[in-house]
Amino acid sequence: MTEDKRSGSVYDRRSPLELDGAAMRALVDLAMARIIEHIDTLERQPAAVETGGAELARSLVESLPQTGTPPAELMELLFERVIPVSYNTASAGYLAYIPGGGLLHSAVADLIANAVNRYVGVWIAAPGLVQLEANVVRWFCQIVGYPEDAGGVLTTGGSLANLFALITARRVRLPADFLAGTIYTSADTHHSIQRAAVLAGFPPANVRDIPVDDARRIDVRATARQIEQDRHDGLLPFCLVGNAGTTNTGAIDDLDGLASLAAEFALWFHVDAAYGGFFALTERGRARMAGLARADSMSLDPHKGLFLPYGTGSLLVRDPETLWQAHSVFAHYMPAMQEDHEFVDFTQISPELSRDFRGLRAWLPIKMHGIDVFRDQLDEKLDLTEWAHQRLREISDVEIVAPPQLSVVAFRLRRPGWDATRLNALNREFMRRINARGNVYLTGTMLGPDFALRICVLSFRTHRDRMETCLSDIEQAAGTLVGPA
Amino acid sequence: MTEDKRSGSVYDRRSPLELDGAAMRALVDLAMARIIEHIDTLERQPAAVETGGAELARSLVESLPQTGTPPAELMELLFERVIPVSYNTASAGYLAYIPGGGLLHSAVADLIANAVNRYVGVWIAAPGLVQLEANVVRWFCQIVGYPEDAGGVLTTGGSLANLFALITARRVRLPADFLAGTIYTSADTHHSIQRAAVLAGFPPANVRDIPVDDARRIDVRATARQIEQDRHDGLLPFCLVGNAGTTNTGAIDDLDGLASLAAEFALWFHVDAAYGGFFALTERGRARMAGLARADSMSLDPHKGLFLPYGTGSLLVRDPETLWQAHSVFAHYMPAMQEDHEFVDFTQISPELSRDFRGLRAWLPIKMHGIDVFRDQLDEKLDLTEWAHQRLREISDVEIVAPPQLSVVAFRLRRPGWDATRLNALNREFMRRINARGNVYLTGTMLGPDFALRICVLSFRTHRDRMETCLSDIEQAAGTLVGPA
Repeated sequence: MTEDKRSGSVYDRRSPLELDGAAMRALVDLAMARIIEHIDTLERQPAAVETGGAELARSLVESLPQTGTPPAELMELLFERVIPVSYNTASAGYLAYIPGGGLLHSAVADLIANAVNRYVGVWIAAPGLVQLEANVVRWFCQIVGYPEDAGGVLTTGGSLANLFALITARRVRLPADFLAGTIYTSADTHHSIQRAAVLAGFPPANVRDIPVDDARRIDVRATARQIEQDRHDGLLPFCLVGNAGTTNTGAIDDLDGLASLAAEFALWFHVDAAYGGFFALTERGRARMAGLARADSMSLDPHKGLFLPYGTGSLLVRDPETLWQAHSVFAHYMPAMQEDHEFVDFTQISPELSRDFRGLRAWLPIKMHGIDVFRDQLDEKLDLTEWAHQRLREISDVEIVAPPQLSVVAFRLRRPGWDATRLNALNREFMRRINARGNVYLTGTMLGPDFALRICVLSFRTHRDRMETCLSDIEQAAGTLVGPA
Repeated sequence: MTEDKRSGSVYDRRSPLELDGAAMRALVDLAMARIIEHIDTLERQPAAVETGGAELARSLVESLPQTGTPPAELMELLFERVIPVSYNTASAGYLAYIPGGGLLHSAVADLIANAVNRYVGVWIAAPGLVQLEANVVRWFCQIVGYPEDAGGVLTTGGSLANLFALITARRVRLPADFLAGTIYTSADTHHSIQRAAVLAGFPPANVRDIPVDDARRIDVRATARQIEQDRHDGLLPFCLVGNAGTTNTGAIDDLDGLASLAAEFALWFHVDAAYGGFFALTERGRARMAGLARADSMSLDPHKGLFLPYGTGSLLVRDPETLWQAHSVFAHYMPAMQEDHEFVDFTQISPELSRDFRGLRAWLPIKMHGIDVFRDQLDEKLDLTEWAHQRLREISDVEIVAPPQLSVVAFRLRRPGWDATRLNALNREFMRRINARGNVYLTGTMLGPDFALRICVLSFRTHRDRMETCLSDIEQAAGTLVGPA
C-alpha cells in the first residue's frame, strides 16, 4: 500500500505554492534575465542614486495582497523602479563605508540552500551540510592563523558577531552579578561594540573609550592605566577589544601589545576584524595585523573581505568550549546533540536555533576558485589604495588625514587659516561634487572635530580604471573649489 | 575622459570572480537542473536518513582549498552525497519538530537579493527595497491583528526574535541594575526563552516556570500568585511570556487572561507565536488565539507558518518606539538616519547593521500568490491534523496525549499497568518502527515523565495522501508491537 501511494498520482492535491519543473525554470529564467542585464550594465549605472527615495517608498506602501500578481510584473517593478534608487553597492564605483561584494556564486549557493531547505542548526539533521559549514569556519580560522582546534560560528554580520562575543566573554569571565564589568576599546571602535555592550546588559559608561594616537590606534599605555584605575575603584575589567581595521580609517591597533596587556590583566581579548581580517590572506595584511591570532575571539565578515553578499559574518574563537559554555541548552523536544564535540551543533554555540544554511554561500565560491584568487583580489585592493594615496598627495590643496593601513585612505581639502566649521563645510561640498559625477560614491567621517572624506576599496569589481576615474573626479572637484586664499 | 572610461574596455581587468552572462547562466542552470530533479523526486525520497552521518562528515573534512574545482563536481558532491544524508525537511513526510517549508519563490528572491546586493540596514541606502521589507512587516502585523502603527523587524528565526524581545523589554521596563527582574512563562515554553533570558543577562532562576494545566496551557492563577510572591520578596517582575502554539504540543495559552494579568501588574507581554502565529490567517486559528494582538511583542516565524525556507523569523511590537528606545545608536561614519520615523532604519530597531535583505524572501511569494493561498494551505493543515487525530483515536492501544490545538497532535501506545520506564521504551520503539518505513518522520517529546510521539503538519507539501500513509504506518507499527497484556 505504501508503494502504491508513492508511485501514485500524488500531485493531484498539489499546492499552488508547489511550482512544477517548468514553472520553477520559468521563474528563475525571468529573474536571471534581469540579474544578468543588471550586472552587465553596472559600468553604466551611477554609483549611487540619492534622490527620489521618499516618493518611491511612499508609492510602494501596500496592504496585505489578497490575490496574486504575475511574476514578470514583479520583476519589472523590482529592477526598473525599486532597485535603481539606491546606493549602488554592487558597483565598481561604490567606495563608501565598507563596500560589500555580491558574488553571484553566493547567490546561487543560497538558491540551492533555500530550495533543498535542510536544517543545519543541529548536526544530526544534516551532518554533511553542517560539515561543509564547519569547513568554512575552519578555513577562516586558518586564514587568521588560529590553531587547529579553534572554532566559531557564522552570523549575519559583524554586529551580531560582536554581540555574541561580548555575551560569551561576559558569561565566561564574569560572575552572575556582572554589572561592574568593564570593557576597553579605542574611541574609533565601531559603534556595534558599544551597542553590543549595552544589549548584553552593561551600563553604557562601562565601555571605556581609550584615546587613539596619530595613526588612530588605541593608546596601549592609556589602556593599561585605565584598567588599573578601574580595578582600584572596585570595577571588574574583563574585556579588551582591539581593531584590525577600523571603519573610520582602517586603523589597526597594536594587536600584539593589546594581547600582552589582556594576558597581564586576565582580560578576554576580542578583535573586531570584521573589515580587516581577511587581509590576513595577504603578506602585507598578515604583517600589519601581527598578534591577531592571540585574540580569544574575533569578528570577521566574509561579506566584506571575501566579497560575499551582505548577510554573512563570523565569530571565531580560540577555544570553542567557551561558546558551548555560554550558549548550550537542553530541551526534551530537541534532537540528540553531539556530546564529544567531534562534530558541532551550531545551536549549542550560538543564540540561534532555526536559521538559514549560510555556510554554502562561502563554501561554493571558495571551492570553485580556490583561495588564491581571493588573495590576489585583496592584494590588488591594497595596491589600488596605495596608488590612490600617492595620487591624492599630488593634488594641490589636498591633505592626507589618514594614510592607508589597509584599503582605506582619508583625506580633505586644506585651507590654511580656516576654522573647522568653514573647512568642514568646504569638504562636504567637495564630497558632494565628487559624488555628483556619478562615477564613484564616497562617504566621510568625523576625525575629532574634522570632517574627512574616505576612499574604501573592497569590491571585487573595483580595478585600476575606476580608481583612475575616481582620482580624476577628485582632482576636478578640487579644481572647482579653488577659492580666495 | 570619464565617458571614455565608461565606454572603454573595462573588463580587461575583470576579476575571475566576475562571471560573465554565459557563466552566470551556466552556473544557475547547473544548480537548477539538480534542484528540479531533487524537488520532483521528493515523493520517492525517504523522509529522513539517520545513518552514515559521521562517516560522511569525516570524509568531508577539508583544509582551505588553494585551487578551484569545477562547479559540476561540486553540484554532484552536494546533491548525490551530502544533501541526501539528512532529515528530509523538504519532504511531505517530514512531520517532525516544527516542519519548515522551502518555497522555491523565496529561493529565487534570495538569488535576486544577493545578486544585486543592495544594503537595507539603513533606509537611505535603498529606500524602495526597505519599503518592501517594511510592507512585509506591516502585512505580518495585519495578520495578527495589530494596529496600523505597529511595527517590527525580520530576524533569522524565532530564537533571535525572542532574544531581541527580552532585551527590548529589559531596556524599556527595568532600571540599569536589572538583575532582580523576573520573567514568567509556562514550563512548556520553548527553551529559546530561557536561553534568551540568560544571554540578556538574567540569572537562570529569574525565569519562573509556571505549571501547565491538562491542555498544557499556563496556569494563569499560579502565574499571578508567583508574581505577587516575587514582588513581596523584592524582585522586579517585568515580563510575561505566553505561547501561541508550543513546540511540544501546539498548546495555546489563555492569551486574553495573560494580557489582562500583564496589564494588572504592568508587565511587558511577549507572545512566542513563532510556530502558531500565522494560523491567525484562518478563522479557527484567530478564534483560538484570541488576545494575541494584546501582546506588547511577539515572535512569528514565516519559515514556519508561511512555508518559507529556514532563516526568516520576525519580531513584531505594538509600539515601534520601544525598539528604537532599546537599539538606536549614533556614529559619525554612518549614513543619515530617519528622524521622524515615517520611514524605518532597520539598524535603529534591531542589533544588526549589515545583514541580508531578507524581506524579499517573504515579499515575492506573497505578492505572486496573494495571501488567500496561504490561508487555504493553513486551513488544510488544521483539517489534516484533525483528521489524523480522529484516525489515531480509532487505533487500538493508542491514546491521545494532546489533542490538536493547532496542527500538532501527541499520542502514545498505552499499556495498562506498565511503569513509565517500560512504557517509554515501548513508545520509542514504536516511533522507530514508524520512521523506519521511510514515508514519514516523526519525533517525540517528554510530557512530564512520559515520552510521547508527535505529528506536526506544517509543510505546504503535506496533503491527505501522505497523512493516509502516515496513519497506515502508525497502525501497522502499533500492530507489530502487540505484546502480552
